[in-house]
Amino acid sequence: MAKPQDPDVLALLDRLGRVLPPAALLTGDAVAPRYQEDRRDRFSAPPRFVMRPGSTAEVAAALAACNAFGQPLVVQGGRTGLSGAHRVRPGEAVLSTERLTELAAPDPDSRTILADAGVPLQRVQEAADQAGLIFGVDIGARGTATIGGNIATNAGGIRVLRYGMFRAQVAGLEAVLADGSVLACMRGLDKDNSGYDLNQLFIGSEGTLAVVTRALLRLHPRPAVETNALLALPSVEAALDLLWRLRKSVGGMLSAYEIMLDTIYRGVAGHLGMAPPLATPAPIYVLAEIQSETAGEAAPAAFMDCLAAALEDGVALDAVIAQSQREFLTLWELRDACADYLRGQDNIANGDISVPVPRIAEFLNESRRVLAQIDPAARFLIFGHLADGNLHYVFQTGCKDRAVDCLMRLVAAYGGSISAEHGIGIDKKPWLPLARSPAEIAAMQALKGALDPRGILNRGRIFAD
Amino acid sequence: MAKPQDPDVLALLDRLGRVLPPAALLTGDAVAPRYQEDRRDRFSAPPRFVMRPGSTAEVAAALAACNAFGQPLVVQGGRTGLSGAHRVRPGEAVLSTERLTELAAPDPDSRTILADAGVPLQRVQEAADQAGLIFGVDIGARGTATIGGNIATNAGGIRVLRYGMFRAQVAGLEAVLADGSVLACMRGLDKDNSGYDLNQLFIGSEGTLAVVTRALLRLHPRPAVETNALLALPSVEAALDLLWRLRKSVGGMLSAYEIMLDTIYRGVAGHLGMAPPLATPAPIYVLAEIQSETAGEAAPAAFMDCLAAALEDGVALDAVIAQSQREFLTLWELRDACADYLRGQDNIANGDISVPVPRIAEFLNESRRVLAQIDPAARFLIFGHLADGNLHYVFQTGCKDRAVDCLMRLVAAYGGSISAEHGIGIDKKPWLPLARSPAEIAAMQALKGALDPRGILNRGRIFAD
Repeated sequence: MAKPQDPDVLALLDRLGRVLPPAALLTGDAVAPRYQEDRRDRFSAPPRFVMRPGSTAEVAAALAACNAFGQPLVVQGGRTGLSGAHRVRPGEAVLSTERLTELAAPDPDSRTILADAGVPLQRVQEAADQAGLIFGVDIGARGTATIGGNIATNAGGIRVLRYGMFRAQVAGLEAVLADGSVLACMRGLDKDNSGYDLNQLFIGSEGTLAVVTRALLRLHPRPAVETNALLALPSVEAALDLLWRLRKSVGGMLSAYEIMLDTIYRGVAGHLGMAPPLATPAPIYVLAEIQSETAGEAAPAAFMDCLAAALEDGVALDAVIAQSQREFLTLWELRDACADYLRGQDNIANGDISVPVPRIAEFLNESRRVLAQIDPAARFLIFGHLADGNLHYVFQTGCKDRAVDCLMRLVAAYGGSISAEHGIGIDKKPWLPLARSPAEIAAMQALKGALDPRGILNRGRIFAD
Repeated sequence: MAKPQDPDVLALLDRLGRVLPPAALLTGDAVAPRYQEDRRDRFSAPPRFVMRPGSTAEVAAALAACNAFGQPLVVQGGRTGLSGAHRVRPGEAVLSTERLTELAAPDPDSRTILADAGVPLQRVQEAADQAGLIFGVDIGARGTATIGGNIATNAGGIRVLRYGMFRAQVAGLEAVLADGSVLACMRGLDKDNSGYDLNQLFIGSEGTLAVVTRALLRLHPRPAVETNALLALPSVEAALDLLWRLRKSVGGMLSAYEIMLDTIYRGVAGHLGMAPPLATPAPIYVLAEIQSETAGEAAPAAFMDCLAAALEDGVALDAVIAQSQREFLTLWELRDACADYLRGQDNIANGDISVPVPRIAEFLNESRRVLAQIDPAARFLIFGHLADGNLHYVFQTGCKDRAVDCLMRLVAAYGGSISAEHGIGIDKKPWLPLARSPAEIAAMQALKGALDPRGILNRGRIFAD
């Protein structure tokens, strides 16, 4: 990738001033501090200037100008990313999607909704709900994280088990390449094999290949029945056993299967000022949810029968099944508050990892043993999406750097991913070679060079400049 | 893309002879006629030579050698493709996957199976079946079409409605780039956001970007219940009405929804020497199928109630619901025999198209009206996957070229796809600009140039050389 000289910023701003309306270009004191915000308070440089295009045409004009001048820029949505791709590197401009906020009404026939990149996830969820439908992805940052950012990082969350990753929600994309050319693959057809599926390449590419401006998103029928249960389990092995049992008895209706170690389970309950819903001491707690498209008692009955059998067989030690919508929400509140609880803790190390599900018990035992050798005082606050093999591997330690590096190497040795949900961004670049071979990284760089030859888009994210 | 000079074939064969075992390299009279086979008997040039690597390492060695010499090659699987990507263009060598035929036993824990590219689809289906699982894609050419070819064309078929396209079945790929570098993204994790998803780019790229050598494929639980029904309907509008009703009552359990015009319905029955299962005259017949993961009477009851209501409301004119496994298979036999029946007909024109489902009735009426203006004697034998908006738009006409061109333009005007399932290959290149913008085609060519700079892989497929 060519490394351009420092661009002629004054000439570039002059051109941008001619192609963008005043509201779309901020310079000097007009650049608010929010463009340097980061959820984990890591360093973000002051942006050279900020572009806030209000339409696809304005995105195209902004990119064409920056490309002509070789001006690197970082694309920002809600700035909730946890791998830092949104943070400003010295010399970069910001392209914010904050003025791309149109959201069409859901189309009930095709079960889709057309959203601008800057629309927060929660607005899509609410619009779907008003149309009697649901959106398949939910994450904690729903109120701030944008559709564009979700696509850039292929967001996951709690219901991947039933609805898939964000990739599975995308029926069409409009995206702008570095040179300003607009690619609109928005027909939203279920079957279309007319050439490369460029959208698939853009999803999860963390803003390095194109700027997504609009997305046609799939919606799902609202479940006629949903319920959940919290279980206390004697071991991770038992949690896996219960997962297989549930898969067998309720199949695709299983919509969430979340795990919490006892430490975080009790910590979160205390943080919320509630008594733990299950007082039974256990090393592991699981929150399981089912959703059924069709009404009737068959699905909840199969769920309850399965849990009852697990209790009888000693696979589960105790269980509480939601008896009302209020109880259903209380159980979810406990799980949802994990991130908030952790923000109040010191010395947090965090691995967003996945390992093959059949190896997850062995991995959890081995990793805790190895990390305890590095820091005998390490305290594990692990939670996550067990059915996807995806753990938020959180622990408190005074040896963060060494411990995280050790964790990442162990994940790789288990055939896992060093970034299950959050992307590589800036912060996980050191471990990319654990996950991807030199040939894969070279192929990624070749693709980057083909679509963004001057390297202006999110340069230095995922892999080296 | 660079257009190399005619390569020094003798020197290349000398190098290939040193890196490949004798069985992997055929020249002269040893090149059997099968490498020029085509299901539609279109012209295929004699291959310059044939490579039949028996391992990924041999594929890598073969490609590295061809790349060094600028020798273009066509990748061949089962040669059942309907857009001609497998046909040999003058000067090309053949790289056949016919010796890449290993198939591992299914892994019941992860519900996956590891298959070499040259394994026919049917072997995967049978292996899944023996493990009590099913594979989600089925197509008529299952006995010959290979996994590699299915991936290259993102095969679809009859159960996309429930299981998605081939893309959705791929958990991991091993692929070799033109320069011989091997990319193995085979961890098969449900959540893995560590850099670009190269596999997604390769799926559907028709062998132009890489040679897929192995795939880790997802399997699904075998349905506990499956049944089907054949219905006679008064119009396409009624078929859509019934589709919405079924979606509402049985939701994701609806696993196939196939349409046949009366002409092909009666033609196929005659071809099979059977009385049509429904004698009631009607312009449209629908074969609907449900699958349920969980046993019990709830799913078939909901299906039958929905069909009974449709009959009562005049949405359907007549119906037969399979009462046994034999009847279930007989109804499918009728649908499966469409392709075989059509091979015996003269003057067949064929559009593998999709249009947005809500517009499909309007499109069918308008297209038949317009095509009848070109050829008043045109006879329509349309069938296909109505729920996906995907029609095998088959008709008999003496004005094939003009009529197909007209059809393609109309499909594009309806926001549809000129190739829903079969890819662009060689034969549909003239219509690619109807489906993809100049910016999209330029982006595809840039990606091709990045991964295959000498243009040796399936050159001239999808877009111009």
